[in-house]
Amino acid sequence: MAVSKYWLGVDLGGTKMLAVLFDADFKLLAERKEKTNGQDGAKAVVERLKSLISETLREADLRPRQLSGLGVGVPGPVNVKNGTVLAAPNLGWHNLPLQKMLEHTFNRPTLVINDVDAGTYGEFRFGAGEKARCIIGLFPGTGIGGGCVYEGQIFSGSESTCFEIGHVLAVPDGRPCGCGRYGCLEAHASRLAIAADVAVAVYRGQSPVLRELAGTDLRDIKSRTLAKAIAAGDRVVEDIVRRAARLLGVATASVVNLLAPDVVVLGGGLVEALEQLYLDEVRAAVLLHAMPFLGRHVKVRAAKLGDHAAVLGAAALAEKSFGRKARRT
Amino acid sequence: MAVSKYWLGVDLGGTKMLAVLFDADFKLLAERKEKTNGQDGAKAVVERLKSLISETLREADLRPRQLSGLGVGVPGPVNVKNGTVLAAPNLGWHNLPLQKMLEHTFNRPTLVINDVDAGTYGEFRFGAGEKARCIIGLFPGTGIGGGCVYEGQIFSGSESTCFEIGHVLAVPDGRPCGCGRYGCLEAHASRLAIAADVAVAVYRGQSPVLRELAGTDLRDIKSRTLAKAIAAGDRVVEDIVRRAARLLGVATASVVNLLAPDVVVLGGGLVEALEQLYLDEVRAAVLLHAMPFLGRHVKVRAAKLGDHAAVLGAAALAEKSFGRKARRT
Repeated sequence: MAVSKYWLGVDLGGTKMLAVLFDADFKLLAERKEKTNGQDGAKAVVERLKSLISETLREADLRPRQLSGLGVGVPGPVNVKNGTVLAAPNLGWHNLPLQKMLEHTFNRPTLVINDVDAGTYGEFRFGAGEKARCIIGLFPGTGIGGGCVYEGQIFSGSESTCFEIGHVLAVPDGRPCGCGRYGCLEAHASRLAIAADVAVAVYRGQSPVLRELAGTDLRDIKSRTLAKAIAAGDRVVEDIVRRAARLLGVATASVVNLLAPDVVVLGGGLVEALEQLYLDEVRAAVLLHAMPFLGRHVKVRAAKLGDHAAVLGAAALAEKSFGRKARRT
Repeated sequence: MAVSKYWLGVDLGGTKMLAVLFDADFKLLAERKEKTNGQDGAKAVVERLKSLISETLREADLRPRQLSGLGVGVPGPVNVKNGTVLAAPNLGWHNLPLQKMLEHTFNRPTLVINDVDAGTYGEFRFGAGEKARCIIGLFPGTGIGGGCVYEGQIFSGSESTCFEIGHVLAVPDGRPCGCGRYGCLEAHASRLAIAADVAVAVYRGQSPVLRELAGTDLRDIKSRTLAKAIAAGDRVVEDIVRRAARLLGVATASVVNLLAPDVVVLGGGLVEALEQLYLDEVRAAVLLHAMPFLGRHVKVRAAKLGDHAAVLGAAALAEKSFGRKARRT
């Protein structure tokens, strides 16, 4: 008799945490969401995460021991050998042994991975990546995350996750970055960088539309606010966003020159709000800056799975890692 | 009874072609060299290559049918599916079906690969790469070539070779590149770019040492000439070379941020002539521009195999591809 398998995927973000329970075919069985409130400290956040996982299981009338495995995406680099979160700036975490903590509580095989790797893998398996031989995921948001799935595997370093495209140098001697250096792509092309430029324009009186919608507080200048202003004909905002998208495109072209991916998937809040603008600018930059024989080959696409990319990817990676061992459950 | 295996590696360069015959343990059995003279046209060069291969075999008293396979490194991108050379600017080649041509003549399994991929694989197997999980080879010369060996395999695109680090954008709106675009790393940091800057300095009278050694003709300003001028205390030349090495280092840091390699191997004429300068500048740039948790991990090393890297790599890749099939010989 075949035993049913269940996989749980978690996307632990700086703002909210999402847990989704899947069956063996990755059909959604239960879903729960909760605020992260990282300022409460690592211990409180991990307790909240454990409760969220338990509630998600209860919603489907399952016990932890019926789970074949868990996959958890986290917003920062991970030690790939032991599932320790090396750093998660938005959560204030440093060297947190999250895999060990969750395995201690639930006693199930647990995979901790970078959230962008999880999202890229999700798009590769179930979304815009179409199971291509080499796909790159790029997710501009508050920061800029990147991931690569090559021949079905997440591309990672020997010790840690990688593909830190947000910290590739984009503008020599450019703006200060959260990482302590200057001119990183993220410092010039993230939603936060765009919001800073736009706030200056509002302050100068150059963007009356956005003055109405948001004002000069960066926290109020969200992806959708930018999209609204552009839709209302605000050329100053549009120019600022297009420049940021173009810088992302130039960095994408470098990645195309290096890795010759089959598909580049663009996702995250900015792309969801301004899909056509991002596709146009990144495609144009790739044609302009990648070697013709590589640039012609790559398909630049919008992500398809939205908020579910990372939970699907994390759960599917858990299946890939633990699928065989899980037979004994 | 075990049948002896022999592998032949060829490095077909813009200036010279080198063929080396190896035994099953990659011990050198015979070696022949010849000028390429690309201006004679593709047909003449391929005939010369065939003669070179035949002579190398004769030198060891072998017949073609005793060869287990051939590996040929070529200076340009290759269609990885059928061994067609997509382009070799230094030879004036376009879409040349070299694999088919050589298999037609010798009737032995033949692998055609990019020369830098071959060199990187050679260093991975027998040199400075130490069989690391992920190694990057960077070869600044007339152009700037790059290669990546990841988990024992050459990283390549679905259709063509890749890792075109020479054409990653280094200086926005920078100098014209041979590829038709502007600001590529190669246009600012290759030996040719350095020679152009140095020639201007000589013309201006800023570099009396190099005026003695070479003058203002780019063809006379070779890697060793630059090294001699620097050894003689020419600060203008040293500054120009250091700036080029630094740009290579910044591009290396981007690669480290993306791929978290274990080892970066620097090779080629410039590095052979100015090893310590290149190691210092690239290491410093990696520490400055790569994420600390990735930059600390990577080892930056000089190549060990010199001119033999590509022939060893090409022959070893032929063994990897044809090793099993070759049993029937």
